[in-house]
Amino acid sequence: MKNALKKLQLETKKQFEIIDISEQIKKVVAESGITTGIAVIFCPHTTAAIRLNHNENLLMQDVMKALYRLVPLDISYSHDLFEVRQNIAPNERSNGHAHVKAFLLGSSENLIVENGLLLLGGKQSVFFVELDGGRSREVMVKIIGE
Amino acid sequence: MKNALKKLQLETKKQFEIIDISEQIKKVVAESGITTGIAVIFCPHTTAAIRLNHNENLLMQDVMKALYRLVPLDISYSHDLFEVRQNIAPNERSNGHAHVKAFLLGSSENLIVENGLLLLGGKQSVFFVELDGGRSREVMVKIIGE
Amino acid sequence: MKNALKKLQLETKKQFEIIDISEQIKKVVAESGITTGIAVIFCPHTTAAIRLNHNENLLMQDVMKALYRLVPLDISYSHDLFEVRQNIAPNERSNGHAHVKAFLLGSSENLIVENGLLLLGGKQSVFFVELDGGRSREVMVKIIGE
Repeated sequence: MKNALKKLQLETKKQFEIIDISEQIKKVVAESGITTGIAVIFCPHTTAAIRLNHNENLLMQDVMKALYRLVPLDISYSHDLFEVRQNIAPNERSNGHAHVKAFLLGSSENLIVENGLLLLGGKQSVFFVELDGGRSREVMVKIIGE
Repeated sequence: MKNALKKLQLETKKQFEIIDISEQIKKVVAESGITTGIAVIFCPHTTAAIRLNHNENLLMQDVMKALYRLVPLDISYSHDLFEVRQNIAPNERSNGHAHVKAFLLGSSENLIVENGLLLLGGKQSVFFVELDGGRSREVMVKIIGE
Repeated sequence: MKNALKKLQLETKKQFEIIDISEQIKKVVAESGITTGIAVIFCPHTTAAIRLNHNENLLMQDVMKALYRLVPLDISYSHDLFEVRQNIAPNERSNGHAHVKAFLLGSSENLIVENGLLLLGGKQSVFFVELDGGRSREVMVKIIGE
């Protein structure tokens, strides 16, 4: 069994941002020397998510509009009641909405490695979904196989 | 380490359709000869998803109604503004809604293989969720283990 | 290749409950002796889910409010029309809403094991999300690696 772990570094700029990390993941696969196996794409943050879809600019606007319609900014989140919460960091953000969005989306996706390549559909990209940026972020790519 | 990859072929007939692929996955597990490991169920499409739940007809209607209520057909999606978008295929569909639904749901689920069998709960089925059919579709099943 | 499977037992008390199972999973990792690999956290139930996020009480209220707003209790679910459904268990519950919530959230998440430890973000916990409690529940933890 072979395995590889790589940490991708990202700098997000906006509150909501969808970043295509497919090429970086393909590079990790190529460098791993693993020809057949599984790749776990893991987000270690609680206000961001990993998703797969079509990298098309206008569609990314639709996704943003849907997420803000389903989990609006302008309603009250208990997580943002700093007078009530305990153990609050000095630089705490009002980001209850972003945690809820991340909870709905999910923190990991699994990809298949075959013939040394990432097995993705023709229109498929892997996205890091920033829900509370700008921040310094990481994505973990773990591959196991042969 | 052993590993197996199998492509399931599906023909969907309706715009929204939930297809139980549990039996096909169990067959892949049996044929793989792998007795203990992990099975990744991966959807290579951007307007479809993989989900697990109870295969009950009326419930599938509830799921459909919820998805269409949360991501309606009758609002505007920028992805469908063909006058503005670039690189559009001649047979492009107005399927912004389906991409957004797929983004919310997710492209992969992971199952456990133990004693040569798929470890599923008693009421659990694995579903291919068609959100923009009818189409020819594929599902990838990758198993690694021993 | 090494692999380990462990079944966690949970007793939920309320209809909606978010239970932090991070410590139990860390114990499974430590006992497995696996130093590098993948851990699949799998929910074998159709009215519960696995999610990762920040373990903060007020945030858990926000998540609950969002899920009940998106998938309300007080609308009609066909799954609960017991006069129409077939093969109904004597103790069947009116839980259409819980199935739909579970369908939206997802049944598995994947974690990375490195240096014998679970690789989680500093604010990240693994949650079992009960959507139709109280019940006796199980979570499967499967680890493969070396």
